[in-house]
Amino acid sequence: MQNINNIPGGVCAPKGFRAGGLHSGIAKSKDKKDLALIVSDTNCSAAAVYTKNVVRAAPLEVTRQHLHNGTAQAVVCNSGNANACAAGGEETAIETCKLAAEALGISAEDIAVASTGVIGVPLSVEPFRANLPKLAELINYDGSDDCAAAIMTTDLLKKEIAVEFNLGGKTCRIGAVAKGSGMIHPNMGTMLGFITTDVNIAPDILQPMLLEIVEDTFNMVSVDGDTSTNDMVVVLANGLAENKQISGKDNGYRTFANALTEVCVYLSRMIAKDGEGATKLLECVVSGAVDDNTARLLAKSVISSSLFKAAMYGADANWGRVLCAMGYSGAEFDPSTVSVSFQSETGALDVCKNGKGVPFSEDKAKQVLSAPEIKILISLGEGDKCATAWGCDLTYDYVKINGDYRS
Amino acid sequence: MQNINNIPGGVCAPKGFRAGGLHSGIAKSKDKKDLALIVSDTNCSAAAVYTKNVVRAAPLEVTRQHLHNGTAQAVVCNSGNANACAAGGEETAIETCKLAAEALGISAEDIAVASTGVIGVPLSVEPFRANLPKLAELINYDGSDDCAAAIMTTDLLKKEIAVEFNLGGKTCRIGAVAKGSGMIHPNMGTMLGFITTDVNIAPDILQPMLLEIVEDTFNMVSVDGDTSTNDMVVVLANGLAENKQISGKDNGYRTFANALTEVCVYLSRMIAKDGEGATKLLECVVSGAVDDNTARLLAKSVISSSLFKAAMYGADANWGRVLCAMGYSGAEFDPSTVSVSFQSETGALDVCKNGKGVPFSEDKAKQVLSAPEIKILISLGEGDKCATAWGCDLTYDYVKINGDYRS
Repeated sequence: MQNINNIPGGVCAPKGFRAGGLHSGIAKSKDKKDLALIVSDTNCSAAAVYTKNVVRAAPLEVTRQHLHNGTAQAVVCNSGNANACAAGGEETAIETCKLAAEALGISAEDIAVASTGVIGVPLSVEPFRANLPKLAELINYDGSDDCAAAIMTTDLLKKEIAVEFNLGGKTCRIGAVAKGSGMIHPNMGTMLGFITTDVNIAPDILQPMLLEIVEDTFNMVSVDGDTSTNDMVVVLANGLAENKQISGKDNGYRTFANALTEVCVYLSRMIAKDGEGATKLLECVVSGAVDDNTARLLAKSVISSSLFKAAMYGADANWGRVLCAMGYSGAEFDPSTVSVSFQSETGALDVCKNGKGVPFSEDKAKQVLSAPEIKILISLGEGDKCATAWGCDLTYDYVKINGDYRS
Repeated sequence: MQNINNIPGGVCAPKGFRAGGLHSGIAKSKDKKDLALIVSDTNCSAAAVYTKNVVRAAPLEVTRQHLHNGTAQAVVCNSGNANACAAGGEETAIETCKLAAEALGISAEDIAVASTGVIGVPLSVEPFRANLPKLAELINYDGSDDCAAAIMTTDLLKKEIAVEFNLGGKTCRIGAVAKGSGMIHPNMGTMLGFITTDVNIAPDILQPMLLEIVEDTFNMVSVDGDTSTNDMVVVLANGLAENKQISGKDNGYRTFANALTEVCVYLSRMIAKDGEGATKLLECVVSGAVDDNTARLLAKSVISSSLFKAAMYGADANWGRVLCAMGYSGAEFDPSTVSVSFQSETGALDVCKNGKGVPFSEDKAKQVLSAPEIKILISLGEGDKCATAWGCDLTYDYVKINGDYRS
């Protein structure tokens, strides 16, 4: 595989992208940036995926319409209010795009809009009207940090990455910011990802590529099984790297897809690691499955099990819960050929071979499971397909964050 | 509807049923009864439903074979070990039935066997060999309490009920004991229900009736979304009430089905109320659905949401989480006609009308949601079907119980 190198700069690392963020008054705390903007110097091929929740926030429908033609030039996003299940939501989202378009001198139809925060509270357009002109002046080619900060809610970790790779002799870059899946007090949070690249790629290639990558990355993350009304991932590709346009499944396609996958895996891991109240990142790798979907179902079921997540919090090698979660996943498999082991920076531990428990040292188990990142390796012995899912432990703090009375 | 009256006696309330329980040594604490037996004086029509988990404990397969002909006479059940995912499980389950059969002087093929407790640890047949003869002498027509105690694991509430009703001039009774869904430390628990009745009913009528009732009762309960490997509900009907045999969908069928439903609803509520760490029983009633399945999916999704359960623990009227959980339930519905209200012994509170929030007093909300039983009433306005689901709040104690290191 070609080299993919990490570089600084986040969404501004690719050529021709400016970004920024400021406090507009939507978030209560004045120290909290709550309005973010990402803009390309030129129009971009654009692709997006949205939450599968039937209850969808207003900005998603507006973004879907704007990206329908496969092009876009900017993303505007607020935190502090999800603009979902509240009166006037669509009007606010549409007006936000118009205000951003005026401030940037581009078309409103080339703007993606996103929101995250409290559900059911009307979102006024006034903070956008008052602050978008200022933000349009503030954005710069080094503004990814402010942008990443402005889309955070209860996130503890800023989620930002950029990579560089070679595509047919041209240096190309991908940058990204994301937030989630910390579940905001007083309401649910959101998984948002905004990805920029200077790669030249046709929109009708970019969209299916994104869908495919999301299946194995963002869609394999679970913090608590609650799919938000606001989830959205947007990719903007402005082509300023001047590579030969990717218009089919050639070498260039594979190179870019690998780099984009690496970016999405990084963000997925970060989101799981920063799950509300989490003390441990769980990575479940299922191998030996008859097909991709079986592997995905099994891996995701394990890292979604409340019982298993609580056991991981307690560093309890309770592998019966792994088998149980596999069993109710909906996937078909033969329990009698399943093997399970736990692995971390402090060691590895076999706990189940061919569907039956194997003796292990409880001291060793405690040692392996007390690390901050735990791998659960499951081998089915039925085929050659595999999948990875990311989650986190279930802790007192998850209950605290989500049980506190709204203030 | 005819009168259905609560009476004492549990599984021994119907004519001709003896029961009992003792400590056999499977559970560590000597004060904990861990072996239960229920026996009818005569052979019974028998019906059963089992966990849908692909990973199934050994006793379930043995019971399935024994009940294949639609008759049975006894149930033997141990707590303290699930007899799942461990070597020799099937042999132990088969041998347990043989030992019980010898002690009772009946056929091993007429015995249902069940287990609950730790997964992955081999279950020796010795405690059964040593104690089943004694238990066979101990059982009596007043032994339901000991039986209910012997099947408990981390359950805090004993789950036992009996009802009496009239069927074509004959007094009939149904009795039951159940356990779960407290998730046992150190491993997962189980939902078990054993129901006795002296009603005369053909096996080929009883089995589909049970399946239908379970859909709307036990299958509508969730404590944490983790379907056990050992779940089982068994009904034994010995016919000693001497009613005209129920052999079709006549008045008698409906009378008995109503009484059996009432028993199953009671046990379902008790299991949810006694969910691990729970401080509140949640009852979600969805009405106005286009079909039964839509109503069930929506109700169950709401009471299964970790976010919503944590909000209920905090007495937080966070109705956005209700809409969100409905949205990802897999059911199709129109969010714009949904109304939601919360109701308890201390009052009622409308929070959402036609998909949008309505203003409410936070003080009133806190008051309504601080009660021990909370109803979540959801109206869809699309049809006339409804469903009810039962769950509990998500608390620090749930994490504590399931996160503690195994000792």
